Amino acid sequence: MNYEFKVTKTLSPKQKPDPDTLEFGKVFSDHMFVMNYTEGKGWHDGRVVPYAPITLDPAAAVLHYAQEMFEGLKAYKTKEGKILLFRPDMNAKRTTKTNDRICIPALDEELFVEAIKAVVRVDADWVPEKEGTSLYIRPFIIATEPFLGVRSAKEYLFMVILSPVGAYYKGGLAPTKIFVEDEYVRAAHGGTGYSKIGGNYVAGLKSQEKAHDKGYSQVLWLDGTERKYVEEIGTSNAFFVIDGEVITAPLEGTILPGITRDSVIHLLKDWGITVSERRLTIDEVYEAYDSGKLSEVFASGTAAVISPVGELCWKERKIQIHDGEIGELSQKLYDVLSGIQLGNVEDKFGWTVEV
Amino acid sequence: MNYEFKVTKTLSPKQKPDPDTLEFGKVFSDHMFVMNYTEGKGWHDGRVVPYAPITLDPAAAVLHYAQEMFEGLKAYKTKEGKILLFRPDMNAKRTTKTNDRICIPALDEELFVEAIKAVVRVDADWVPEKEGTSLYIRPFIIATEPFLGVRSAKEYLFMVILSPVGAYYKGGLAPTKIFVEDEYVRAAHGGTGYSKIGGNYVAGLKSQEKAHDKGYSQVLWLDGTERKYVEEIGTSNAFFVIDGEVITAPLEGTILPGITRDSVIHLLKDWGITVSERRLTIDEVYEAYDSGKLSEVFASGTAAVISPVGELCWKERKIQIHDGEIGELSQKLYDVLSGIQLGNVEDKFGWTVEV
Repeated sequence: MNYEFKVTKTLSPKQKPDPDTLEFGKVFSDHMFVMNYTEGKGWHDGRVVPYAPITLDPAAAVLHYAQEMFEGLKAYKTKEGKILLFRPDMNAKRTTKTNDRICIPALDEELFVEAIKAVVRVDADWVPEKEGTSLYIRPFIIATEPFLGVRSAKEYLFMVILSPVGAYYKGGLAPTKIFVEDEYVRAAHGGTGYSKIGGNYVAGLKSQEKAHDKGYSQVLWLDGTERKYVEEIGTSNAFFVIDGEVITAPLEGTILPGITRDSVIHLLKDWGITVSERRLTIDEVYEAYDSGKLSEVFASGTAAVISPVGELCWKERKIQIHDGEIGELSQKLYDVLSGIQLGNVEDKFGWTVEV
Repeated sequence: MNYEFKVTKTLSPKQKPDPDTLEFGKVFSDHMFVMNYTEGKGWHDGRVVPYAPITLDPAAAVLHYAQEMFEGLKAYKTKEGKILLFRPDMNAKRTTKTNDRICIPALDEELFVEAIKAVVRVDADWVPEKEGTSLYIRPFIIATEPFLGVRSAKEYLFMVILSPVGAYYKGGLAPTKIFVEDEYVRAAHGGTGYSKIGGNYVAGLKSQEKAHDKGYSQVLWLDGTERKYVEEIGTSNAFFVIDGEVITAPLEGTILPGITRDSVIHLLKDWGITVSERRLTIDEVYEAYDSGKLSEVFASGTAAVISPVGELCWKERKIQIHDGEIGELSQKLYDVLSGIQLGNVEDKFGWTVEV
C-alpha cells in the first residue's frame, strides 16, 4: 500500500541543540505527524505539519479518563549518513494490542510505520550524529472528543513527535542501584500492565519518588497478586543471570512486551545461551546471590538499551551484583544491540529499517 | 482565609440548553475556573474566565503519562432559588489523597471549594431548575509541562468546568442489569484504585464494552487478587442487603471512597439499620440469593445517586434481585439523599453548602 501524507514545512526552522549537552525528551524537532480519527470516517488526513501546540476542549476525554497510549523508538544515523529505525513493526504491533485494551480504534500497522518514516524524512537533519545520540520518536494517540462520561471516545488524534536525545549514560554504561518495591504494585493479572498506556506510568511515580528518596535510581516491581515474583525494573524489562541461565518474566499480561527484551532473547539464543521466560521469585534471586550463582542483573529498554544493576535492596537487605561492576553479558548485549542499531554490526535478523 | 479570584466574563454568552432534553456531560456553561501551578511558585493565578479551548504542547505530560485527576459533584437549585452543593469538602479531601498518590502538588482544600463556588456563582443561571436536573461540576488537574520522561511534572492546571445535566433516570429509578466481571480487574492492593485518576477509568472501558455487548449496563468488579470479593459496580460503590444487614466493600485501597457511599452509610446508621464495611464474596451473594436472604443490591454514586440492581449475571448464572423491581431501601435512600441535595428534606448532618 502506498501512503501519501501531505507535508507542510515550517517557515521558521528552530536552531538545533548542541549535541554535547542533549538531555532526554526536552527539545523537539521542527515537524510532527498528525492524523485524525472521526467515528464513521475512520483514520483520516494524515499529515506532516510544523511542530506546534494543539488545542483541546477542556472536556476532551484524554484529560479526564486517560484514554491515551504511546510508543517509543529511536532513529540512528549511520557512518554513511543513512537513517535507521530499529524494529518499528514491533511498535506497530504493540500499538494494535494496546489500542484493543483501551478501546482506541485500530490503526493500520503499515500506516503507523509509514507515518514515522514520513516525519523523520522531513526532519532528517534532526537525527544527531555524535556517538551515543539518536532521535527519539514518540508516536501517541489521545482521545479528543469533548464529553464527560465513561465510554470510549469517538474522536482521536494520532501524532508522532521527535526529540534529539543524548547518550543515556554519559561516559558509558553505569550500574544502577535498584530498590525492590513491596508496597505499591505496577500491574495485576486482568489489568493493563502489558499495554503502553499513560495510566501504567502515572501509577509508578509514587514508588519511583520513594526509591529516589532512599538513594535508588529505580524500583524492581514484584507481581501484584503475591508480591513475590520479579516483574519489571522501573519502565524496563528485567533479566537475571543465575548459574548460566538468563531469566526474565514471562508475558502473562502484567509486563510490557519490550522490543529490546525480545531482541535480547533472540541474541542470547543465537549465542547458545540458555534463556528462560519464566516466573522467578525475589527469594530465588537472593538465594542465588547467597550461593554465589547470581552473576548479573540488567534491565532492557529503548531509552538505555541495556542498563546493568549494581545493587538490589529488598526489605533492608542490600546485595551487590557482580561487585557493582558491569557484567560481561550486559556489556556484550549493549555493544551488539547498539552496534546493530547504528549499522556497525551485521543485522542478521533484519531488524533495522532504512528511512 | 479569603480567596479573591479575578473574574473575566464572556462577551458572547451561549444559549442555554432545553432542560427537557439534557444529556450528561455534553453541554458546558459560559465560564470555567483555571489556576496554574509552577514549580517554585506553587498554585497561582486562580481565575474565572470564559469557557474556551486550552492549548497544550504535544509533549505535555498529561497526554503521555496520564498525570491527571478529577472530581465530580453537583449543584442543585432549591425551590427558593438557592444553589446548594453537596459535601464539597469531601471532594476536596479526596483530591488531597489522589494528588498524593500520583505526585500532583497538594491543593489547599478550602481553595478547592472556593474555586468551585466562584465559578458556580458566575454561572448561577446555568443551574437548571427542572426536577431531576442539576449542574454537574467537574474539577480536574492536568500535568502540562512539556517533556518526555517518567517523573512528576513541574507545571499543572487546575480547572473547574460545569455541565447542566438531566435526570439520570428519565421516568424515575430503573433497576439495572449487571455483569459480574471475572476476567479483567479494576484495581489491586498497592495500586491506584482508591484515587480518582483517569487511569482507573480507562482500564475499565474494555470490560464495560464487553458487558454492553452481552446486554448488561455495567459490570460488578471483583477484587484483583483472588477474584472473589465484590468491589464496585461500574464507577459506583456497591451495596448488598442480606438478611437485614447492608454490606459494602471496606476502604482498603482498592475501591473509591465514594461520597454518596459515605452518605448512605451515615443515613443507614441513623435509621438504625445494620451496615457493615466488610469483605463479601460473590459466592456469599449467590448463597444469600439461594436461601432467600438477598433482598436488595444497589450502587451509589454522584451521577445517579442510587441505582438499584435488578439482575446479576456471574459465570452464566443469572439471578433476579427483588423480582427485578426497585427495593424499598434503594427507593428510600434515593428519595432522602435527593431530598437533602435539593433542600426538600432536613439536612441534619449539615451536608449542603450554599453558594
